[in-house]
Amino acid sequence: MAIVFYDLMGRDGRNFSPYCWRTRLSLAHKGLDFDHRGTAFTEIKEVGGENFRTVPIIEDDGHMIGDSFAIAEYLEDKYPDRPSLFGGDMGLALCKFVHSWTNSVVHPGVANLVLLDIYNHVCDQDRDYIRASREKIFGMPLEDVQAGREDRVESFRASLHPLRLTVRGQEFLGGERSNYADYIVFGALQWARTISDFRLLTDDDPVFAWFKRVGDLFDGMGREAPGYY
Amino acid sequence: MAIVFYDLMGRDGRNFSPYCWRTRLSLAHKGLDFDHRGTAFTEIKEVGGENFRTVPIIEDDGHMIGDSFAIAEYLEDKYPDRPSLFGGDMGLALCKFVHSWTNSVVHPGVANLVLLDIYNHVCDQDRDYIRASREKIFGMPLEDVQAGREDRVESFRASLHPLRLTVRGQEFLGGERSNYADYIVFGALQWARTISDFRLLTDDDPVFAWFKRVGDLFDGMGREAPGYY
Repeated sequence: MAIVFYDLMGRDGRNFSPYCWRTRLSLAHKGLDFDHRGTAFTEIKEVGGENFRTVPIIEDDGHMIGDSFAIAEYLEDKYPDRPSLFGGDMGLALCKFVHSWTNSVVHPGVANLVLLDIYNHVCDQDRDYIRASREKIFGMPLEDVQAGREDRVESFRASLHPLRLTVRGQEFLGGERSNYADYIVFGALQWARTISDFRLLTDDDPVFAWFKRVGDLFDGMGREAPGYY
Repeated sequence: MAIVFYDLMGRDGRNFSPYCWRTRLSLAHKGLDFDHRGTAFTEIKEVGGENFRTVPIIEDDGHMIGDSFAIAEYLEDKYPDRPSLFGGDMGLALCKFVHSWTNSVVHPGVANLVLLDIYNHVCDQDRDYIRASREKIFGMPLEDVQAGREDRVESFRASLHPLRLTVRGQEFLGGERSNYADYIVFGALQWARTISDFRLLTDDDPVFAWFKRVGDLFDGMGREAPGYY
């Protein structure tokens, strides 16, 4: 039976969650079929009950697993004969660093540039929840978070310099082949692409070339998903 | 015959080069004996001739190899039966990301806080060269680069957050065991420790706990080197 993949659902079939993109590409990397179930924020409790408050969630062989990194580790253990997501214990440990960098540098950077656009792409039933919860986190109206982004995008681009230096010298973070580290960072940029026409990257940025390389993987899984560029 | 290791030499036997620390710990990780040769900046050309303008340089079996990352790759290939520095191709590729992050975030951060202290610890014969070359790079007197560091150290600490999040959850960047990624970042902080009493990290910072763990490795190779804390 195919794995069930609960993915965050936005308006117009847009799946924008950066964490869910990590999982979607991990499933594809392992060559696993999955039954894709779009889920609104406010529906997550119906899927996961008390145990899960966020998506992605996968259901495999009667087990439900949440948290994108835990899902990647589960898939690596359960399907060891398929292409590796980590390339061994040290690769996994270093993916934790990429995870920490992405969560603490790239995600806040993206959110500060496109938060209102995210809000404008959530399902109708999620709108009140998202505005209230995000305005509490950011301490200001969504409109104010996003304001002035034209002046701030350069510093966001500069924050990606460690990635830029790396993908100038190699195809993927994983080396000649992509691995889970690529999917972690790709998710953050795909998040923006799916819900905003505001360009985070210039066309000639090596990071953008890398983003397109990852988007081309698995028959263009990332590229073909509805997005603005 | 033991490997010859040309290491940057400062005053009072202080070896402060962050890149040389990467190599020194890599040699220890591989369990290789080495003949340590302290080298002033202005002596490098006598060691390496036209081919090498920086240390570290190692000499092994009649070959000279420069550039700390190239040395690590050389050691991994030449001594495959000894503990791995990378844990495979994906681990190596991800170490390139850690290298890029360290070079573009941590090194400038450290230099902006202790550049004058570095100058005050170079060999007498290097002083004129270091002042002239570094003032050209930074576009101002060394004294001005370092000025006001008490007000800037917090933002340096914040820039280490990806490392902090990672080593809160695991012993080393390499996981349960240290690997080359640890030596890359350790070198940057050891650089400061060897030449400055200005504390980059607070005692209760998980990054400082990790720094001490790496310093304890190989019979305290990092910890026992002359330094200010």
